[in-house]
Amino acid sequence: MNLDQAFEKYLPVVDAEMRRLFESPFGTLDPFYGMMAYHLGWLDESFSSIRASTGKRLRPILCLLSCGAAGGEPEDSIPAAIALELIHNFSLVHDDIQDNSATRRHRKTVWKIWGQPHAINVGDGLFAMAFLSLAHLRGDLSAQRLSAIHQTFSESCLLLCEGQYMDMDFETRLTVDADEYVRMIGRKTAALLSCAAYVGALIAGEEEDVARKYRSFGEQLGLAFQVQDDILGIWGDTKVTGKPVADDILQCKKTLPVLYALQRERDLDEDVLTALYAERTMSPGDIPVILEIFERLKVLDYTISINSGYCDRALEELEKTGGRNPYHAILVELVERLRDRPA
Amino acid sequence: MNLDQAFEKYLPVVDAEMRRLFESPFGTLDPFYGMMAYHLGWLDESFSSIRASTGKRLRPILCLLSCGAAGGEPEDSIPAAIALELIHNFSLVHDDIQDNSATRRHRKTVWKIWGQPHAINVGDGLFAMAFLSLAHLRGDLSAQRLSAIHQTFSESCLLLCEGQYMDMDFETRLTVDADEYVRMIGRKTAALLSCAAYVGALIAGEEEDVARKYRSFGEQLGLAFQVQDDILGIWGDTKVTGKPVADDILQCKKTLPVLYALQRERDLDEDVLTALYAERTMSPGDIPVILEIFERLKVLDYTISINSGYCDRALEELEKTGGRNPYHAILVELVERLRDRPA
Repeated sequence: MNLDQAFEKYLPVVDAEMRRLFESPFGTLDPFYGMMAYHLGWLDESFSSIRASTGKRLRPILCLLSCGAAGGEPEDSIPAAIALELIHNFSLVHDDIQDNSATRRHRKTVWKIWGQPHAINVGDGLFAMAFLSLAHLRGDLSAQRLSAIHQTFSESCLLLCEGQYMDMDFETRLTVDADEYVRMIGRKTAALLSCAAYVGALIAGEEEDVARKYRSFGEQLGLAFQVQDDILGIWGDTKVTGKPVADDILQCKKTLPVLYALQRERDLDEDVLTALYAERTMSPGDIPVILEIFERLKVLDYTISINSGYCDRALEELEKTGGRNPYHAILVELVERLRDRPA
Repeated sequence: MNLDQAFEKYLPVVDAEMRRLFESPFGTLDPFYGMMAYHLGWLDESFSSIRASTGKRLRPILCLLSCGAAGGEPEDSIPAAIALELIHNFSLVHDDIQDNSATRRHRKTVWKIWGQPHAINVGDGLFAMAFLSLAHLRGDLSAQRLSAIHQTFSESCLLLCEGQYMDMDFETRLTVDADEYVRMIGRKTAALLSCAAYVGALIAGEEEDVARKYRSFGEQLGLAFQVQDDILGIWGDTKVTGKPVADDILQCKKTLPVLYALQRERDLDEDVLTALYAERTMSPGDIPVILEIFERLKVLDYTISINSGYCDRALEELEKTGGRNPYHAILVELVERLRDRPA
């Protein structure tokens, strides 16, 4: 089995189990659960069945593969995998309100259709459903292990909120250094991926000290993933991303390449980028100017080297787990998928 | 020990433990945790220490007393009691955004000071902290019991969101019958109180079937509490409530007395109230008119009888638990505190 086959094998199972979780309460309060199902890509805005994008499902697959790599049955971790995906989705629903984003995965966002008050509540509902999913974990886990799983889940949620706080705080500042940025994405993105790998290993019955190595692996993987996403947000192929050219620049997002470029410019006593980002709105005409500056400052090379560093460290941490089975090999493949290469 | 003494004995302990929960992460991201601490009444808006109202703390006290009544050490349930209070407070922070409320407990609401995006995140943070608190439960609980506790917590959170959905839905409708209202408050208010009594009994080590009687007791108590709150919102002494006369009328809230009055009016083919509530804004001059109609339709008598019915059923459920110790007696006192009596 390779990575694509793993996605093909497991994602339909995760999706089916996730739908089952929504079946029991569903029906009593259709629109409330319908709005959640809309966000998850199962229903349209009139609550009729559709097949829309459900997102990459990276968190559930990481959890299942880590469980397998640690010697467990990947299927045993499905309730945790679902919880991770629901927590991720709760944060997206709230993020869309906070960012005032009208579209997500080529569809209107929940708040755009049903208004902010309902969207806040839909996010809260997904949060609660996530913890509810954990109630379906295998019955023979020890109390100690169960506690550890619940604790890491709630800690990761808190880190997610900390990351969101930092992200919103950065929006109001022009100077954010790269270290601060890494602390932010460590919370906003890597915490949940780290939780996914850790919990997968815990469910497999792995010893605590080895499970922690899976956690470190997940964290480095999460950082690599976010930096790759930052690269795609500026230099990504529009056919692949489905977004306009250099969309993150257009949206004035202060991702790692931008922060690095601003820093380099300050070091060189230049101020073109600083002036453009200070205005906090960008016109399409600014993009070629900015991309040219980025090229001169070798911003892409820098960002690729950072991404590559995280991928290397992820592989190192993964090696430390001592795993050697086929799932381990698929995790290696997953890391390589998140590695950006110079075009 | 009586009820007031129980409040005096336990609330400072709950408060101290709750502050301790905020100590470990606090400091790294001051403003994020500072906003939570502001909402909880510990800090002012510049994050300096103050002593502001922390609310009634009904959920924690119910959890501790139920634990005691079921034969356990009340203190053992403190992590659960804190989780209940934090869940309640997460819902208040979000509710204030959803209702566009500028004040809560005589202070500005979180969104009013820091804006909606941060307030959404502060609520999410409190939600995560609630589940984190459960990690401090006694280490000797069985895996089965721990699972039951986590499951009832997440189910109650989901019910809370369902209730919030219904409440927001009611705002857009003029005709809501009393049964629908009870289903709504059963979720929005009673679910968490029911969880408090149930979890208290579970932590005490009470058998599942007896613990479920505590759950039913908590539910009836929760309904009584909400209906009493509805009475106070219209006929409460302004010196006690700290709010304007008939504040719920002024705010056009569709509480049980209002829904009953609208129903009675329809039965009598009258339409003064219907016309006033259809406008969805109320002027102070409308209040005497409405209060006079309420008096003619005996709305207060009806609401008191409903409150009283819930109190009676709460006592019946409490009797079924078979408890007879001093904590049991304090729970009886708590029910009587929630019983409204004709002036």
